[in-house]
Amino acid sequence: MPQCSGTDHAWSASHLAQQLGGRLQGEGTCRVTGLAPLASATSTDLTFVLDPQRHGEALEQSAAGIVLVPEGAVVEVKPGRALIFLENVYRGYAGASRLLGASRRARSAGVHPTAVVHDSARVEPDAHVGPGVVIGPGGRVGAGAVVEAHCVLGAGVEVGGQSFLHPRVTLLDGVRVGERCILHSGCVIGADGFGFAPGGAQGWDKIEQLAAVVIGSDVEIGANTTIDRGALADTRVGNGVKIDNLVHVAHNVEIGDHTAIAGCVGIAGSARIGAHCAIGGGAGILGHLAIADHVTIHAMTLVTRSIEQAGQYASGVPHQEARLWNRMLARLRRMAR
Amino acid sequence: MPQCSGTDHAWSASHLAQQLGGRLQGEGTCRVTGLAPLASATSTDLTFVLDPQRHGEALEQSAAGIVLVPEGAVVEVKPGRALIFLENVYRGYAGASRLLGASRRARSAGVHPTAVVHDSARVEPDAHVGPGVVIGPGGRVGAGAVVEAHCVLGAGVEVGGQSFLHPRVTLLDGVRVGERCILHSGCVIGADGFGFAPGGAQGWDKIEQLAAVVIGSDVEIGANTTIDRGALADTRVGNGVKIDNLVHVAHNVEIGDHTAIAGCVGIAGSARIGAHCAIGGGAGILGHLAIADHVTIHAMTLVTRSIEQAGQYASGVPHQEARLWNRMLARLRRMAR
Amino acid sequence: MPQCSGTDHAWSASHLAQQLGGRLQGEGTCRVTGLAPLASATSTDLTFVLDPQRHGEALEQSAAGIVLVPEGAVVEVKPGRALIFLENVYRGYAGASRLLGASRRARSAGVHPTAVVHDSARVEPDAHVGPGVVIGPGGRVGAGAVVEAHCVLGAGVEVGGQSFLHPRVTLLDGVRVGERCILHSGCVIGADGFGFAPGGAQGWDKIEQLAAVVIGSDVEIGANTTIDRGALADTRVGNGVKIDNLVHVAHNVEIGDHTAIAGCVGIAGSARIGAHCAIGGGAGILGHLAIADHVTIHAMTLVTRSIEQAGQYASGVPHQEARLWNRMLARLRRMAR
Repeated sequence: MPQCSGTDHAWSASHLAQQLGGRLQGEGTCRVTGLAPLASATSTDLTFVLDPQRHGEALEQSAAGIVLVPEGAVVEVKPGRALIFLENVYRGYAGASRLLGASRRARSAGVHPTAVVHDSARVEPDAHVGPGVVIGPGGRVGAGAVVEAHCVLGAGVEVGGQSFLHPRVTLLDGVRVGERCILHSGCVIGADGFGFAPGGAQGWDKIEQLAAVVIGSDVEIGANTTIDRGALADTRVGNGVKIDNLVHVAHNVEIGDHTAIAGCVGIAGSARIGAHCAIGGGAGILGHLAIADHVTIHAMTLVTRSIEQAGQYASGVPHQEARLWNRMLARLRRMAR
Repeated sequence: MPQCSGTDHAWSASHLAQQLGGRLQGEGTCRVTGLAPLASATSTDLTFVLDPQRHGEALEQSAAGIVLVPEGAVVEVKPGRALIFLENVYRGYAGASRLLGASRRARSAGVHPTAVVHDSARVEPDAHVGPGVVIGPGGRVGAGAVVEAHCVLGAGVEVGGQSFLHPRVTLLDGVRVGERCILHSGCVIGADGFGFAPGGAQGWDKIEQLAAVVIGSDVEIGANTTIDRGALADTRVGNGVKIDNLVHVAHNVEIGDHTAIAGCVGIAGSARIGAHCAIGGGAGILGHLAIADHVTIHAMTLVTRSIEQAGQYASGVPHQEARLWNRMLARLRRMAR
Repeated sequence: MPQCSGTDHAWSASHLAQQLGGRLQGEGTCRVTGLAPLASATSTDLTFVLDPQRHGEALEQSAAGIVLVPEGAVVEVKPGRALIFLENVYRGYAGASRLLGASRRARSAGVHPTAVVHDSARVEPDAHVGPGVVIGPGGRVGAGAVVEAHCVLGAGVEVGGQSFLHPRVTLLDGVRVGERCILHSGCVIGADGFGFAPGGAQGWDKIEQLAAVVIGSDVEIGANTTIDRGALADTRVGNGVKIDNLVHVAHNVEIGDHTAIAGCVGIAGSARIGAHCAIGGGAGILGHLAIADHVTIHAMTLVTRSIEQAGQYASGVPHQEARLWNRMLARLRRMAR
């Protein structure tokens, strides 16, 4: 049986209902300290149910103190539990995760004594700079920003207010990052674009990459992702863009606002991606093409030419039993002859 | 002509034969200090031959001091050389590599003066902590573990006994790593999963990723690989799992014991991979699906739905001469209309 | 209207024309300090036009002080502007970028006090070693080489003269890098190859990776790229090879001189790649095969067997509107039955 409990730092159901814009039923004094899945939630956890009809029994048996449920659903409230009815439960869950997890990125102000900060750099007094951080000449770290251990910021790098750099982020010379961004460990922003001209003795002559990378505000960039600096004009990532892990963004690329890019995607040089696009994992986008706004690219698709119409595009091949797949390939090969 | 030699630190053929469980023939006093391929081995090297019939001449000409050969093979032993006959030569080679290479990961005990270890963290006295390492509050480094230069361990991170972290490994808050694991440089364990809900003004609202990553024992994780923390429940990697370089494992994924994952694989959120699976390089696995035990996925396959039967699965397309390939694509396109 | 200007550190048109081997027309005293695209160039910028007929109006309106144009093109020179006529404009642009950007990698000589350099390591006096760098026993940093912040060089690592390691490069034990190489942030050279033998209890036995990685001269390696050490023989990267970001090169691979490899490529163990090859982004190359010289692999191609003839090879599937693509797949599946 669920039982309300909590501490001074816990969140009450009535407060959460108000914050999330939901309708409270049951024990408004219920207090929770965390979120958990339906099956493993305890009385001090909040959980959520997207489809109460389908998960009725699990909901009945869950010990969760507070449950977010869809407005209009017929759900009985157990004693000692609070229900919060919401128009959009998933979004409510996202909001609750931020309220309950807000403290995860809180850091004390100040520069760690082992950090190496150039005299000409400016770190706002309420910013946090962790152990071993290196900040080059002219660098700027905005108000309330956090730069965790072993980040390296080159010359003239700017990090906007409230942005958070996880350990081991590298921003090369001249990179600018907006406000409230989250950059995950190991990402490298501003490495040289892959630019070479055919040179003497059949070799390659380097083309110096002289521009930088400009990242908007409210951007999140995944672990070990790389975004290269432009050759002549800056590589640009719009506001609200979300990029997953191990993504490669080549030089001179432009990514429109609020576009989301899943893991392992590669985007070749000078591609322009629209706003509000969604690019599936492992997709590849060739260079010097343009993709319209509101385009969805399915996983492992190869985009070979510009896309002018919003819509869904694909070329990924679903797996088959290997013997069947070999038969399909043989058939295709025969036909082409 | 091979000639036995060696030093106090060398391994004798008789000792190796005993350790590897093989049958010795020839000079048991032969001593070797390293392993080498058949063609370049010297008299102080051990080498191996999987198919003595096919490589008879090369074996005859090799200077190797000790040779592992298959039990039952007809091989003449040269003077000054030792043969070790084994049921499984490849496994014997693996065993010899571990005996001869064991010292590679030996480190002296102690914490380097430049390391920044939180007062509340506990490092076992015989563990090694290298230059510039950062260990957060409540961190634990087990007996005989090695944490090399510039690794960053967040709050509450646990590293099991005898585990080895190469330089520049990042373990974010709450990550737990079992015993005898090997983590390669640049891997990032516990970055936030890629979780967002459609939010206001057509943007994305972050879903805080509140769980962690739990890695079993005897796991190896490749360079620059990323394993994200779970949203509500931990991401889990089973015992004996081997993961290659530049692999992306998304939040809430579960990987069963002894599964091997080759380079450049991407696994999307909440996928459950069985035990004893083998996943080929560059494969992509969509989220919220389940793969049975003993499933083999070929290279660059896209897994789009659950796989319930052990077996071989594929969708990678073998390369063709480009003009033929274009003809095949044109044909396929015509047919679909 | 363009107007010549500049400073003591600027480059004059007459000097640039001479350096690039071009024919000067117009104001030889024009001085520039940077490069910019045609549209945004100011009077102190150099720019270039590959096709003056097509971009005639833009060229007319550009404020660029110096413009590189193809020899033989009919272009009128504006007052206060210099034109440099070249046989190969793109190559001229590359040359200009190097002249104007040469100072980007200039660093002062010396070892930063926070670096941890082993007593037995040798750093040439005019080399630069940045904050937090770790250099193991027997390491060597050549004349004029630059090792930026937080690089880690294991035991016996050699970095050739004039080579440049961006921040957070990791070179594990025994790795050798030639002269004039550029290694970008986050790359990991010399992690263990992915080598295991089927072992007891259906698990995997590690095969120790006992060889190293040898990188030629004039090589560039992208951000977060990984190149694994060989098992018994060294992994080898030839002279003049250019590798983009997030590429995985497995153990025992050999890459011939002047081959270029785009982002997100994966190359499996013991593959031998020829010289002067070009490998498109996201391609996958299986192990234990050989690719001839002068082979071009298109993006996202899967190379499954050896390629003996120079030429173009492909298996990437161009994107389609998703509904059409599903129809094509269904058709193919029907045919195979």
